[in-house]
Amino acid sequence: MKKLLDSINYPADLRRLAPEQLPQVCAELRNYIIHQLADNPGHFASSLGSVELTVALHYVFDTPEDRIVWDVGHQAYGHKILTGRREQFPTNRKLGGLKPFPSPEESEYDTCTCGHASNSISVALGMAVAARKLGTQRHVVAVIGDGSMTGGLAFEGMNNVSSSPNDMLIILNDNDMSIDRSVGGIGEYLHKLHTSSTYNKLRDRMGRMLYRWHMLNDDRKGRVLRFNNAVKLLLNHQRNLFEGLNIRYFGPEDGHNVVELVRTLQRIKDMKGPKMLHIHTVKGKGFEPAERDATVWHAPGKFDPETGERIKPRSADRQPPRFQDVFGETLLEMARKNPNIVGVTPAMPTGCSLCIMQREMPDRVFDVGIAEGHAVTFSAGMAREGLLPFCNIYSSFSQRAYDNIIHDVAISGLDMVLCLDRAGLVGEDGPTHHGAFDLAFLRPIPGLTIASPMDEAELRRLMYTAQMPKRGPFVIRYPRGCGVLTDWRCPLEEVPVGKGRRLKDGDGQTAVLTIGPVGNVAAEAIREVENETGMSIAHYDMRFLKPLDEEILTEVKERFRRIVTIEDGTVEGGLGSAVLEWMADHGGRPEVVRMGLPDRFIEHGTPEQLYRIVGIDREGIKKVLNASQHSE
Amino acid sequence: MKKLLDSINYPADLRRLAPEQLPQVCAELRNYIIHQLADNPGHFASSLGSVELTVALHYVFDTPEDRIVWDVGHQAYGHKILTGRREQFPTNRKLGGLKPFPSPEESEYDTCTCGHASNSISVALGMAVAARKLGTQRHVVAVIGDGSMTGGLAFEGMNNVSSSPNDMLIILNDNDMSIDRSVGGIGEYLHKLHTSSTYNKLRDRMGRMLYRWHMLNDDRKGRVLRFNNAVKLLLNHQRNLFEGLNIRYFGPEDGHNVVELVRTLQRIKDMKGPKMLHIHTVKGKGFEPAERDATVWHAPGKFDPETGERIKPRSADRQPPRFQDVFGETLLEMARKNPNIVGVTPAMPTGCSLCIMQREMPDRVFDVGIAEGHAVTFSAGMAREGLLPFCNIYSSFSQRAYDNIIHDVAISGLDMVLCLDRAGLVGEDGPTHHGAFDLAFLRPIPGLTIASPMDEAELRRLMYTAQMPKRGPFVIRYPRGCGVLTDWRCPLEEVPVGKGRRLKDGDGQTAVLTIGPVGNVAAEAIREVENETGMSIAHYDMRFLKPLDEEILTEVKERFRRIVTIEDGTVEGGLGSAVLEWMADHGGRPEVVRMGLPDRFIEHGTPEQLYRIVGIDREGIKKVLNASQHSE
Repeated sequence: MKKLLDSINYPADLRRLAPEQLPQVCAELRNYIIHQLADNPGHFASSLGSVELTVALHYVFDTPEDRIVWDVGHQAYGHKILTGRREQFPTNRKLGGLKPFPSPEESEYDTCTCGHASNSISVALGMAVAARKLGTQRHVVAVIGDGSMTGGLAFEGMNNVSSSPNDMLIILNDNDMSIDRSVGGIGEYLHKLHTSSTYNKLRDRMGRMLYRWHMLNDDRKGRVLRFNNAVKLLLNHQRNLFEGLNIRYFGPEDGHNVVELVRTLQRIKDMKGPKMLHIHTVKGKGFEPAERDATVWHAPGKFDPETGERIKPRSADRQPPRFQDVFGETLLEMARKNPNIVGVTPAMPTGCSLCIMQREMPDRVFDVGIAEGHAVTFSAGMAREGLLPFCNIYSSFSQRAYDNIIHDVAISGLDMVLCLDRAGLVGEDGPTHHGAFDLAFLRPIPGLTIASPMDEAELRRLMYTAQMPKRGPFVIRYPRGCGVLTDWRCPLEEVPVGKGRRLKDGDGQTAVLTIGPVGNVAAEAIREVENETGMSIAHYDMRFLKPLDEEILTEVKERFRRIVTIEDGTVEGGLGSAVLEWMADHGGRPEVVRMGLPDRFIEHGTPEQLYRIVGIDREGIKKVLNASQHSE
Repeated sequence: MKKLLDSINYPADLRRLAPEQLPQVCAELRNYIIHQLADNPGHFASSLGSVELTVALHYVFDTPEDRIVWDVGHQAYGHKILTGRREQFPTNRKLGGLKPFPSPEESEYDTCTCGHASNSISVALGMAVAARKLGTQRHVVAVIGDGSMTGGLAFEGMNNVSSSPNDMLIILNDNDMSIDRSVGGIGEYLHKLHTSSTYNKLRDRMGRMLYRWHMLNDDRKGRVLRFNNAVKLLLNHQRNLFEGLNIRYFGPEDGHNVVELVRTLQRIKDMKGPKMLHIHTVKGKGFEPAERDATVWHAPGKFDPETGERIKPRSADRQPPRFQDVFGETLLEMARKNPNIVGVTPAMPTGCSLCIMQREMPDRVFDVGIAEGHAVTFSAGMAREGLLPFCNIYSSFSQRAYDNIIHDVAISGLDMVLCLDRAGLVGEDGPTHHGAFDLAFLRPIPGLTIASPMDEAELRRLMYTAQMPKRGPFVIRYPRGCGVLTDWRCPLEEVPVGKGRRLKDGDGQTAVLTIGPVGNVAAEAIREVENETGMSIAHYDMRFLKPLDEEILTEVKERFRRIVTIEDGTVEGGLGSAVLEWMADHGGRPEVVRMGLPDRFIEHGTPEQLYRIVGIDREGIKKVLNASQHSE
């Protein structure tokens, strides 16, 4: 059979097909995604689940003139393939290739930046209101998952939908999952809506009541039907959570029946006022292993598209562990001894490996849904009563909890630990996901302790140190992926707060100050420069951004002519800046060279590629160290 | 009649009274608040509205062992007075006196920091979960207003309430107001719940239907009653938004009937599982002028408690205007010419003076409720379609929109303007409200333009500059209160982006670099020091934190031995830090002395008192300028 997909370069091509041909398009699109992702890893299960929705939306709506706002680009691979990017799709997420998430810079079909969850309703509402103001006839559609619906921003958007005249459509793509299983009241609520059990119960209860009062009986069957419809009407018009917010509600509907979807969308698209279509989809739909375990298959890496076997990267016998797993194992180890320790995650139990503790102590781990602000403030409430929360948030998502960290934690100096995973450049997920700003935005907050471990053993020591009594708010940030030690299970020992380490001494010319795992790269660079030039360069692992180790700073101020600071966060306001401030306040005169992420958003690529581009790799550091020699 | 209030020092004293005596306690407490606030200004209307609730809560619950978590301390004056602070209440909000909002440092009856809205459910949930974990028998009550309910954090909390076993009680104190009138779907929803019109309509419609089908008739009155109850039951058990989130719902109830409130609270306090009591109160209750205009009486300043006349501070003939009003007037002026300009505020149309534009162009101003994140992302959606939003947020509240600024605005470089009002020390509202961190947390964000005007004319020029085409994201931050110019209505002229001004030259010894209105204080200090010592000190108004004016920096680097930077934000990461970074990157060797807010949370007091304490007043600046002379 001739492939339909090959002839679809843009949605306009899709719209020339008959509705009956759409199932075939969906099958081909799904198959294309499976085979592409098998070889070029990416977000898999979400995009499989939204194939029919994607096809239906581009079929019914006049994109790009009509706006589709995807909430989190995970689900948007089908969208990319149908909007002029099928040929480039093999470059997806690769350096210089297609971006990991929709981006207006890449395509006019992409309407907004969507890397962080829950923003689609707000953006789409802005667009819908703008269309009215500018007198443009245009449909605006937000597509949001049930997981994203737990984010406060989504609610702020929904609450505001009815305030300004607009005709937007919200599609609630409900698969009962975020990356892990969705949690919280709204998830349960949607589940109930879906199964319609509420409706059924209600109808039955009322029916029984009316029978009992002899208002209904079996020979009045017609009335029973009318009665049922009346109850349904009541339900649809009155009881629904979304209707409560003045959003007209349709559904739930099967999100994998493309013909039905098209029909429904055509029916409701021109209705006036804000409306929601609730569809039910299966994450990983059409690829059996992914349907069975959607968490693993959220971003599975390479796999065999025929057998579904995941292809593990070949590795040496003993690979260093991932920082995530060291966090997870260490927390469990400590939690066994310290009954006050609890774990909190906003929807990332697997990603941050809190699941390790969760398996053994399910009642001491709290997955609060995609709700970073709440994760921190909820932890603050527990800390106030004497529990010791380890709240784990990805660095870039912690931007959503900034006020909570200041207002609910730091002002009161609460004893709790904030672990920021995915700090520094995360790689293929690109600019929305890089943990570039945490050091700079946390440093001005009074009373925080801010640390970053150079390796896994240091992570364990810092975690142990952070859980000692009366430590106040304690931040530990570490990157995605593997560390450097295979023997990481060191004894749990306290490190002095605010104290760094001299890793090696130097001859008084140059001292390198690093924070975090970039210290390992610096150590290599130093070794090589020393071998190549005979220089002798001192190296200090600062360990703490705040408080700064003033002993080290005094030492380097007095003994060295030049200081090179290296960090994997932005160069504006981070460690380099802190060192400059200290030197200025203490009359230090060494030259200070700051290395860090430059003042621009960094694109996607592998972490190695990106660190090379920004010059925070071995070669880049060597160059700076050599230059500092030549400048003498 | 003997005053009951005089004998109530702690809630335990209150609990010795009979329920019939509580109305008198309420009357006395209300009267005390009115007379205190008349003379010592503070948050007025909210605390009047919660008198009965406060008395009922402390009567029924065993505080401080039971926890009451107030959402935003506005409503907590009665709570303070009943919990050991009646005598000190005249010091409320004064330097060294009672804190503006509840604070655990001040009293064991205060359970958390509450200056920013919407955090109470999350905190209380943390406490309730902790109580279970720690095996403590304890009630936890969150008291949240309908305004705070529009914040995403409140929703994240509610969504999570049903996830962990707990018995918390949420009191929804519904007065249809935040500071201005509440907006959005949830407000309307609550309104409907209150009037019960939904219930009534539903009942009527169903009733008519059943009559039509001859299932009901007038001689079956008993059935009609049963029918009505059944519908009500259905409604209460099935349709409620909160019940949808698995929170048991009670109410709405009259929040000013203290005896009834006590009865209800006693009835529900020991029920298992999370529950909500919805009460209706009147902001300003019991003081007629405040009931009539709760927005004005939110924080009215001094007034005559008998006549209700507000006492305006005496002023010179021509007082400089408030920055807020210059913002409001200027925006309206520009909006008349530029049809793409729209205004956005998260619940502060009066506070930020966007109401000036709103009165003339109601459909171009959007009050989105207490929802700072949504305010920014919604603006981003409009900006993407070609509108030019001026989104106005108080500096400290903008901490809640940090990720939105990065993710939804800066990454895409959208053309929109973010005006941060209440920057710097705000005074009596204390540490939760100071705009101390904005310069430091915004500076690392790539592509932002960040400006702060020295006076009202500069504010106008910066606003005009910001709305020119293709300016990208543009931040303008300015303080609360009056500026320095009486003739502020200067022509709207563009200033070059990233260019500061040399206000006066000096002799090469010291150059002062300032940003924002603190420049006026610095100018005075410079004048005095010059008069007293004969020094000649240069002064530059940097105007922009980002991009920095490199011409000025080159000039001071080459011509001056010493640079003093002065800003009204934290000294970690702000202007001083930026200047240090530039000097380090460009081989600058002048000594840099940084003046700004120190690295601790600043308490409450008048702005003048606080700036004196932190040394950013005329005397403090003179001292530094003089010291820099002596150090030669």
